[in-house]
Amino acid sequence: MAQRLITMTSDFGASDHFVGTMKGVILSINPEAKIVDICNSVHSFDILDGALTIAQAYRYFPSDTVHMVIVDPGVGTNRRPLLVTADKHMFLAPDNGVLSLVYEREERLSVRHITAEHYFLQPMSHTFHGRDLFSAVAGWLSKGVEVAKFGEEVTDFVRFAAPKPKPVNDTLMKGVVLKSDKFGNLITNFTPKEVPQLFEPSPPTFKILVGKTEVTRMRDTYSGGAAGEVFGVLGSMGYLEIAVNRGSAAKTIGADKGSDVGVLFEAAAAAPAAT
Amino acid sequence: MAQRLITMTSDFGASDHFVGTMKGVILSINPEAKIVDICNSVHSFDILDGALTIAQAYRYFPSDTVHMVIVDPGVGTNRRPLLVTADKHMFLAPDNGVLSLVYEREERLSVRHITAEHYFLQPMSHTFHGRDLFSAVAGWLSKGVEVAKFGEEVTDFVRFAAPKPKPVNDTLMKGVVLKSDKFGNLITNFTPKEVPQLFEPSPPTFKILVGKTEVTRMRDTYSGGAAGEVFGVLGSMGYLEIAVNRGSAAKTIGADKGSDVGVLFEAAAAAPAAT
Amino acid sequence: MAQRLITMTSDFGASDHFVGTMKGVILSINPEAKIVDICNSVHSFDILDGALTIAQAYRYFPSDTVHMVIVDPGVGTNRRPLLVTADKHMFLAPDNGVLSLVYEREERLSVRHITAEHYFLQPMSHTFHGRDLFSAVAGWLSKGVEVAKFGEEVTDFVRFAAPKPKPVNDTLMKGVVLKSDKFGNLITNFTPKEVPQLFEPSPPTFKILVGKTEVTRMRDTYSGGAAGEVFGVLGSMGYLEIAVNRGSAAKTIGADKGSDVGVLFEAAAAAPAAT
Repeated sequence: MAQRLITMTSDFGASDHFVGTMKGVILSINPEAKIVDICNSVHSFDILDGALTIAQAYRYFPSDTVHMVIVDPGVGTNRRPLLVTADKHMFLAPDNGVLSLVYEREERLSVRHITAEHYFLQPMSHTFHGRDLFSAVAGWLSKGVEVAKFGEEVTDFVRFAAPKPKPVNDTLMKGVVLKSDKFGNLITNFTPKEVPQLFEPSPPTFKILVGKTEVTRMRDTYSGGAAGEVFGVLGSMGYLEIAVNRGSAAKTIGADKGSDVGVLFEAAAAAPAAT
Repeated sequence: MAQRLITMTSDFGASDHFVGTMKGVILSINPEAKIVDICNSVHSFDILDGALTIAQAYRYFPSDTVHMVIVDPGVGTNRRPLLVTADKHMFLAPDNGVLSLVYEREERLSVRHITAEHYFLQPMSHTFHGRDLFSAVAGWLSKGVEVAKFGEEVTDFVRFAAPKPKPVNDTLMKGVVLKSDKFGNLITNFTPKEVPQLFEPSPPTFKILVGKTEVTRMRDTYSGGAAGEVFGVLGSMGYLEIAVNRGSAAKTIGADKGSDVGVLFEAAAAAPAAT
Repeated sequence: MAQRLITMTSDFGASDHFVGTMKGVILSINPEAKIVDICNSVHSFDILDGALTIAQAYRYFPSDTVHMVIVDPGVGTNRRPLLVTADKHMFLAPDNGVLSLVYEREERLSVRHITAEHYFLQPMSHTFHGRDLFSAVAGWLSKGVEVAKFGEEVTDFVRFAAPKPKPVNDTLMKGVVLKSDKFGNLITNFTPKEVPQLFEPSPPTFKILVGKTEVTRMRDTYSGGAAGEVFGVLGSMGYLEIAVNRGSAAKTIGADKGSDVGVLFEAAAAAPAAT
């Protein structure tokens, strides 16, 4: 009955047996399981990158999907393995904040510390709980084992606030590049909430400062830019992106994840939302 | 009933949530959908690379498969989204020529402009129609919605001719490297049609000119070459490939996609096909 | 009935149509086939790398799974295509030793030379038997065709011994780095069998020599190391790994696959297992 879909988001990469082995574990427990990769190329050990990836994708999956989010530099230590149930989705992840952006979006959450060792593979390694613990639990969950059987609820789970832009003065806000995507688009942490004027059909005069570049044009689409032009665009993730038509903004500007981003309006028009 | 298989060919890469999110959209519409990746690492924005990839793969899939081919630098502009039905296969792609090599191979084609917005995700982004439009349509198609429901037929769709080798004089033809594969084999646009002599058991004396290298040997297999030798071979895609046994011809020669290729026969033996 | 799972391990990479096309062939023969990637990014032509990858993963899959292991630099020559049945698993691979580590682990083996050409795709290329032969056979196998129908048993199949550490004198053993994983952990060929003392709670004084680095600490987990510290750890593959907490040992040390590894004990405590 409970043929729950399972997704995988991790930093295990594609160059080793890790992801394949995890699927083997799941399918050995539940041969009918349906497994979909969201992304296994999260930057190694990068919890924020994992958090951004799952936050973008999970809402597009069917209700009752089990999302594995295994970015787990603390594997084998006393960091807890978690089973999280939200309104429509379930998550398996280490308790290191990798679900922080899910926590931000979901109102009703139940977070459990997975302790039911009889569901784990034995002997359990100290270095690959993706295989020995999380995949095994995902297999059993997908077969319909009740969440309460895996462990007790906890409330002191780890969460961090995603970095938000901050006003420096009346005309300037400072943010950051959250990531660059495969095309070299720079995804900033600015949204229409902090700088609504930027996304108006005729925005007031502005400068977006990234690296040594001053961006002064917003476009509606990636291909709206002239050849070589660096411009801003509202991306599909809901963030301000810095882009180049058929090119890489990351390479053109020399900026990447972590680079500072300033949004400067000529007049004191910035109306930072009280977050 | 109509459990159509769905394939994905795109330039979305493996380092972001894009491909996973698209699968979520499909599975939310049709939880029974079966999705297979052909290749999501098409070079960014490279329509010819996408065209070559789908043209190589689609014929090996079962009849009635829906092939998504999303290399879409013009996303969000007025370039049209297309639903193409050929004899045994269906295709979803932007109208930018990425299906040109499919058009070349297929005799009976019906090309429709997808306009039925009630099948799209709402609100629709300007930058990710792979998610908001093509995946949604693929999901509905795989459930058996009739093609005519998605939009009207058009005849002025974009198509380009794949680059073909051209005779320079009686003894020389000029072509190009279409791509280098993962092994570093250089796939040229020469086929047995243009240079049949090259593929004979004992070809007449010839030189293949690539970069600064003169290739003078044809081999039947990749491992037929001596250590370090650069040679020609008829590849599985039907093209002349330049290869090195257990090595990368691309690195050895310093050539890649776009490099010129000359095929020179000693005597005036070239019999270029009238294409 | 016989809905055998099929796995894929190969060096075909993700940047071409190869893997997708192979799946198309399988699904054209058996539309119900369930296919799982173990790893298609084995180093090009690297038979040992392929052997290590499948050896790590296959035991985690359900009984009766068909494992395709296509690292096949000799494709098109007279190297034989094999169908191997072990106690619980089946394997399809070229006869070049890529199953050597499977042979090492499995007691009962039946190895067949695949000769039944009527199961192959026609015409068959000389350069892509992954598509024309192995995928076709996998498709038919997954439908329940009996193994005996594909060819006769052979006993002179190719196998090599995985490189094992060797004692140099009473205190020193020499081994090698088998591979570096996605995180930059260096997987050596030392196991608790050769150097049991290393994995004791309080090991005797030792040095692990890799590149120009002397490693003098063992840790239980990857995150047990201090910032920047290079240490040893028992990895999930059963081998001694050299690691850095949240960093790449491969980059830190400047070592990689093939690098020498020495394990030196202060006292003559080394008790090399008689292998």
